[in-house]
Amino acid sequence: MKKFINKPENFVEEMLEGIYLAHPAVTYTANDKHCLVTATPKPGKVGIATGGGSGHLPLFLGYVGDGMLDGCAVGGVFQSPSAEQMLEVTKYIDQGAGVLYIYGNYTGDIINFDMAAELAEFEDIRVTSVVGNDDAASSVIGEEHKRRGVAGILFVYKAAGAAAAEGLDLDEVTRIADKARLNTRTMGVALSSCIVPEIGHPTFEIGETEMEIGMGIHGEPGISRRNLEPADDVVDSLMERLFAESLYEDGNVAVLVNGLGGTPREELYILYRRVAERLSERGITAKHVFIGEYATAMEMAGASISLIKLDDELDRLIAAPANTPFFTRLKA
Amino acid sequence: MKKFINKPENFVEEMLEGIYLAHPAVTYTANDKHCLVTATPKPGKVGIATGGGSGHLPLFLGYVGDGMLDGCAVGGVFQSPSAEQMLEVTKYIDQGAGVLYIYGNYTGDIINFDMAAELAEFEDIRVTSVVGNDDAASSVIGEEHKRRGVAGILFVYKAAGAAAAEGLDLDEVTRIADKARLNTRTMGVALSSCIVPEIGHPTFEIGETEMEIGMGIHGEPGISRRNLEPADDVVDSLMERLFAESLYEDGNVAVLVNGLGGTPREELYILYRRVAERLSERGITAKHVFIGEYATAMEMAGASISLIKLDDELDRLIAAPANTPFFTRLKA
Repeated sequence: MKKFINKPENFVEEMLEGIYLAHPAVTYTANDKHCLVTATPKPGKVGIATGGGSGHLPLFLGYVGDGMLDGCAVGGVFQSPSAEQMLEVTKYIDQGAGVLYIYGNYTGDIINFDMAAELAEFEDIRVTSVVGNDDAASSVIGEEHKRRGVAGILFVYKAAGAAAAEGLDLDEVTRIADKARLNTRTMGVALSSCIVPEIGHPTFEIGETEMEIGMGIHGEPGISRRNLEPADDVVDSLMERLFAESLYEDGNVAVLVNGLGGTPREELYILYRRVAERLSERGITAKHVFIGEYATAMEMAGASISLIKLDDELDRLIAAPANTPFFTRLKA
Repeated sequence: MKKFINKPENFVEEMLEGIYLAHPAVTYTANDKHCLVTATPKPGKVGIATGGGSGHLPLFLGYVGDGMLDGCAVGGVFQSPSAEQMLEVTKYIDQGAGVLYIYGNYTGDIINFDMAAELAEFEDIRVTSVVGNDDAASSVIGEEHKRRGVAGILFVYKAAGAAAAEGLDLDEVTRIADKARLNTRTMGVALSSCIVPEIGHPTFEIGETEMEIGMGIHGEPGISRRNLEPADDVVDSLMERLFAESLYEDGNVAVLVNGLGGTPREELYILYRRVAERLSERGITAKHVFIGEYATAMEMAGASISLIKLDDELDRLIAAPANTPFFTRLKA
């Protein structure tokens, strides 16, 4: 296991210490480094919290900042944070306007966020939830509620965060987050595994020439394992599956070509080149383009393509400025 | 070779097509995609050009944009672009105020940039050059002119780019770029090799448990190969060598903890945690902190630490806003 770590059991704690040293715009509450919150809460604003396992930077904590999220409960590597940690984040970020939870569709996270929401009610904090389920590979059409949340949650964060920054109320911010969720789909492909520090060996095996279409960001099985194809063919497979969702017929989208950790940026641009061709052929305009590492699985080589269908409202909110340790967007 | 590519010989061309599709703020001149320039030249401003081999994104082209660079000649993977390409970039970006070349200390780049500068003179364009040589591992103290340029060139770009944006003249921008160069040192460590697409096998071999201190970003030999140590010990080795340069005794620095491509962000933060401790012990303040992938060697696992000693002028220029496809900094 070749990693820059000290003791594997200190991986998350020391990573968080680095985060706080590097980024004074975030801090922690309840004397628990896993309860990451903005250092500058905005009075009266709807709070937005997320949370999930570590090992996915910039997910989840990297999007706490102006114009996006207010807090994040940080779990162990690929492990849910606790309900108690989520509650502490909720209490800190509530400014009297209520709190929206946005997180991915994983059993542990659901159980803990639901419990945190109940506990928050006892503290007279109103909580709503939107559960990201953008991974089109992880269940068939008609069973979208079974799908995992992956990189496309970025669009939900961005739209909801901009809405909250505009001063909209909890119901409106929740409506927008849910619309962003419903309009977003992701398809991924993995070329290599990753190593959880406390486990010390690859999460799964994959052959020297193989790729797995639809693999999850913790190594969950995908829908097809076969020999690696030319980049354009890989994109075509992913786009075909995305287009089958009947969401992207024309109009405007935002696109995210996300690296899973071990894939060079150059390759992401080669993928995007083909994505742009396929969108253009279909008469779809890529209004906003994000290319880079936005949701990773540590050193996993691979990539995902996310699309969000834009109406005027989502277009405006995706375009809005934001400033977090891992995401900065200037005023247009 | 597991890469998202089509034909290896089209790697750079297709990567560039993706760049132009994704980032309308950059375009190309002379009908050659390798001659990347800003789409919005600023009348009267000193132009800044860079250039170098591909395979290092965000280097070099990723820093063309507001507050940084105006153009970049893009070579093949790990290959210098031609003098002709540099000249075309120079002609496009010259706004009558002259052009500064900032590039790394590699033989091919020096020969070609020097030739481009001579050719530019025939076109009545005044050109100055600052050659980045921040890699402290690549030659001993006293022979700094033999050192390679690596990730620390970011600070030279940033300082010079902000100076040019402030409207300073070519002599001033050159003076500042040279001061930034003289105040910057980098030490790197590699854990794995990388694969040049047209070659198809790893550039060098490195054992399952080994690291190489001081390896260059093309796989040039370092100063010590030994078993991988705990992250804190790795940082201590790198910092010891940086401190030996007698530049960083107290005062303010900016810090860059750079991932070489295959190393997860989490690990970079674990490294930064120790960097911050070592700086603090010495009474040095990290005024600006950059953590992420700023200069890569495709999928190489590894990291580097760069420090720039700041005076008030460099502090102001590093802090200034910038907006490029791979680097955005808001107004403080």
